[in-house]
Amino acid sequence: MTYCVGLWLEQGLVMLADTRTNAGVDHISTYSKMYTAVVPGERVLCLMAAGNLAITQAVWSRLSEGVLLDGEKQTLHGVGSMFRAAQLVGAAIRAVYEVDGPMLRAQDVRFDVSIMLGGQIAGGPQRLYLLYAAGNFIEATTDTPFLQIGEHKYGKPILDRALSHATRLEDGVTLTLVSMDSTLRSNLTVGLPLDLLVYEANSLQVRLQRRITEEDPYFHDLRERWSTALREAYRQMPAPDWL
Amino acid sequence: MTYCVGLWLEQGLVMLADTRTNAGVDHISTYSKMYTAVVPGERVLCLMAAGNLAITQAVWSRLSEGVLLDGEKQTLHGVGSMFRAAQLVGAAIRAVYEVDGPMLRAQDVRFDVSIMLGGQIAGGPQRLYLLYAAGNFIEATTDTPFLQIGEHKYGKPILDRALSHATRLEDGVTLTLVSMDSTLRSNLTVGLPLDLLVYEANSLQVRLQRRITEEDPYFHDLRERWSTALREAYRQMPAPDWL
Repeated sequence: MTYCVGLWLEQGLVMLADTRTNAGVDHISTYSKMYTAVVPGERVLCLMAAGNLAITQAVWSRLSEGVLLDGEKQTLHGVGSMFRAAQLVGAAIRAVYEVDGPMLRAQDVRFDVSIMLGGQIAGGPQRLYLLYAAGNFIEATTDTPFLQIGEHKYGKPILDRALSHATRLEDGVTLTLVSMDSTLRSNLTVGLPLDLLVYEANSLQVRLQRRITEEDPYFHDLRERWSTALREAYRQMPAPDWL
Repeated sequence: MTYCVGLWLEQGLVMLADTRTNAGVDHISTYSKMYTAVVPGERVLCLMAAGNLAITQAVWSRLSEGVLLDGEKQTLHGVGSMFRAAQLVGAAIRAVYEVDGPMLRAQDVRFDVSIMLGGQIAGGPQRLYLLYAAGNFIEATTDTPFLQIGEHKYGKPILDRALSHATRLEDGVTLTLVSMDSTLRSNLTVGLPLDLLVYEANSLQVRLQRRITEEDPYFHDLRERWSTALREAYRQMPAPDWL
């Protein structure tokens, strides 16, 4: 499986993905699930993918080579808006489905892919989308400023409680790492290293793209501190008066 | 869906279940998912069920009427050990499967049931089992002192971090309620009120069985405090030095 989380904050975007893929528990590999298309000063696009690795890689390859959109072959470096970019990724998913869908269905393999797309293109606002296997998509809003794909349940409670659209960008990074940590601890199919991208709204350049490994001193320290803080928090809870 | 969690602690057992059942989001009801068979001084058995409500109710009805085990009709009030009790519940599941399985399969409905069974019978130790739809089962151990059924992912991280077999019984109650709270907040198909049973090891009587409603002052306070504690905990996390 996979866990990817994206935040759409006033101050910018935070995108975080794990790198574990598995075809059964005895076939585990490390693959980056994060793809970027960046032209500094003009566009920053970041994609994160979950699902069948052959499908997500095929989608990315098609996007690199160009996908037909409204009769014209386009790439993420060419589209004029984030909405068009989401449509293009959707078109790439549909193109892969046309080729691989029938055989996958014949072999009872689900066409399993979901893609998060965040970024900004000059002249438009920053946006964060979640695309489904059908190529259609939803968008993050001020009410729901985060989107998740893959193993999303373990890491959702802390986001539900602590995150809002007004959360500072730095705090957003910490929150996604805490959310990821909960997932890493409880689910073996999500694994280190992590890929992190931080984008400051309207900057049109990547503020930070970082591979976070097991040895990253900050993440290591954060995991320890968070565990300790959680254990302490529960110890401070009063005992039931009815027990 | 459902969320039930059971703890197998040195000091005793904690069993906690929500009460929401749903057949689609527009058909939501409240049903207790906790069943008990108690003879003070002799036996305390507590069952919690997840899955298809028609199946779990059928299992419970069969257990009440008696189920064939080794050629003899038996009930939870008669079996001589917790292991036999688990076998009896398994036999009840299989008996329901024999009657309803073929028609459910014909209509593409999964035979979906899982049951947790905790308790103690005089002469043996307290034990905690998780039974699958096939009627087979696993048991909690000192390495894995908690079991979950239903929507288990949201509430697992805090248990993974904070719970051990040596956790005090009172702390175990708090932990299960915190674990349940995370699930309630993040998943609409799990809902209040809750059914809680607390059993002290070797007491052979129920220490507490309580229905916890929205108005329960302790649980209400705990939820607020836990949310505040989590938000404060993440605010105390240092910002990344590489950002």
